[in-house]
Amino acid sequence: MSKINTIEYKEGILYLIDQRKLPMSHVTFECKTYQDVDYAIRDMVVRGAPAIGAAAAYGAVLAAKEFINESKEVFLIKMETALEALNCSRPTAVNLMWAVKRMRTVIEKYRESTVNDIYKKINEEADIILTDDIATNKAMAEWGNKIVPKGAVILTHCNTGALATAGQGTALGVIKEAHYSGKNIFVYADETRPRMQGARLTAWELMQEGIPAKLIADSVAATLIRDGKIDLIFVGADRITLNGDTANKIGTFMLSVVAKAYNVPFYVVAPTSTIDFNMETGKEIQIEERTAEEVTNIENIRIAPEGIAVYNPAFDVTPHENITGIITEKGILSAPFINSIQKLK
Amino acid sequence: MSKINTIEYKEGILYLIDQRKLPMSHVTFECKTYQDVDYAIRDMVVRGAPAIGAAAAYGAVLAAKEFINESKEVFLIKMETALEALNCSRPTAVNLMWAVKRMRTVIEKYRESTVNDIYKKINEEADIILTDDIATNKAMAEWGNKIVPKGAVILTHCNTGALATAGQGTALGVIKEAHYSGKNIFVYADETRPRMQGARLTAWELMQEGIPAKLIADSVAATLIRDGKIDLIFVGADRITLNGDTANKIGTFMLSVVAKAYNVPFYVVAPTSTIDFNMETGKEIQIEERTAEEVTNIENIRIAPEGIAVYNPAFDVTPHENITGIITEKGILSAPFINSIQKLK
Repeated sequence: MSKINTIEYKEGILYLIDQRKLPMSHVTFECKTYQDVDYAIRDMVVRGAPAIGAAAAYGAVLAAKEFINESKEVFLIKMETALEALNCSRPTAVNLMWAVKRMRTVIEKYRESTVNDIYKKINEEADIILTDDIATNKAMAEWGNKIVPKGAVILTHCNTGALATAGQGTALGVIKEAHYSGKNIFVYADETRPRMQGARLTAWELMQEGIPAKLIADSVAATLIRDGKIDLIFVGADRITLNGDTANKIGTFMLSVVAKAYNVPFYVVAPTSTIDFNMETGKEIQIEERTAEEVTNIENIRIAPEGIAVYNPAFDVTPHENITGIITEKGILSAPFINSIQKLK
Repeated sequence: MSKINTIEYKEGILYLIDQRKLPMSHVTFECKTYQDVDYAIRDMVVRGAPAIGAAAAYGAVLAAKEFINESKEVFLIKMETALEALNCSRPTAVNLMWAVKRMRTVIEKYRESTVNDIYKKINEEADIILTDDIATNKAMAEWGNKIVPKGAVILTHCNTGALATAGQGTALGVIKEAHYSGKNIFVYADETRPRMQGARLTAWELMQEGIPAKLIADSVAATLIRDGKIDLIFVGADRITLNGDTANKIGTFMLSVVAKAYNVPFYVVAPTSTIDFNMETGKEIQIEERTAEEVTNIENIRIAPEGIAVYNPAFDVTPHENITGIITEKGILSAPFINSIQKLK
């Protein structure tokens, strides 16, 4: 079992594994203020939709701790400023907004209590988000594992493991569960340009778990899919709309097109907290564009000529018709998702 | 017009732009023996199917020069050894075998002549291959430009420009021609993992030519294609079989699947020397597998954990049914390619 402490909160400090440094060094990033958390999310010290949600929740705890000696009025104003900053730290992952919303709801519910009590409730809520995520991961993994045949060769994209969550992961969580249950699976991991979460993080987690695997450049997947070498594809999600359209790491949509063309099952694995019940379709999803340097530089090495323009969207949207099923903690949703998602409301 | 001297032969030395060093430094690699050329092809100092062919031809010239004082018998034996080494320096590009075969034909034709005369004929043949490639590039560019509309947004993969040929290029040659003719085109260049020929070389050539362009991670192309932002796709080829199946840089097949799904014209640009008249279909093409380090390291920086296994094919095969047309120096071949290619025989 995985013992990766992606997120840990102890005595007023949020400890995050600094994922910018993996796999070459295993360093902990300490957040002592909500601004530290804001920075950690923005700069991708912590990434992965569920992990971002949990980190933001503890960002709220750090803010509440900082403002604990203020008057109620000032406390509430300052908390709102902090929550709004955390809410905007990255635009695409709905779990971030979902976690911030849960904090707002707690504050609203206990606004007649003392500042100290509100702080305690915020802390409790963050702990619940964290422990719930672990249980949710496990439930998704068990649902997903039901559809993994023995000896399956599984393709995955980006990192959706312990590093992306508080538990064993979403898509990678299912893969781990299949491995734990002795199914002799084999994994192909997309390296996932430009941030290389597959090469850096998924490869690292797979090795930690002893799961047989090969790393590939993203464009290799298409040939493997066509040649019948992939039995199943599992990917995560940053936001799922009411019709099942799914925003996930750039490259997911491309995989889904090839999977559909060659009839390979394509599953999204995500907790129901990833569903945005306020969005009808993927067309409404705001896609984060990141800096050119993510494409033109690796670490400090420049690979592209100075001055070249870059288009660097962090996510893409996979249309619901390319998705075989959505594996959640409550079961596997099947098409038409507009119906199966509605039932969760 | 392009003034990039990818390949230049002067007084017994073959000068190659060292493409491993671009775009950060512009260094010339000198080949004084055929073994130097063999190394240069293997290690990708020179790359791109037509450029490899021309380099191998001059490898034969360097060998002949080295063996010029041998007896005819020894000369012929040593030449065969050299040609076989050059022939095996990389497995997928048919132009390499084609150039070596032309050298063998010259030797066969003049085997009754003196060693000195055979050497001269080999040198002449290499010069013809080089100058023919320049003319072939120009002819392809003009044919291709006929189908480029004004203001077209063009997607390309890998590097197929002056650095891949002796002239202005194949796919990138068409793009340059469209630019020269004032069509106000815009180019999206795939970075082309793992070797980054798009980021390193195509971006550099586009900037040298002043062609408006953006660099993208390979997996971004799919979204651009779906969203109607790409009018045309031009790619090169390393080997084309009789039915039109095309081996090209890894990632080409993936693009072709998405292009087909969203009805975007997908053109292969290649000289007829890229056609392998001895192969019926792409299933027979041997795909070169390269080292894991191309994926796990960038320059000297390790990005993936030590010990992770890698699958790193250098090419993939695009089936003929995904190809709109093949632009050659003799015109644009259209489907069914089995007929249009047969006519070239």
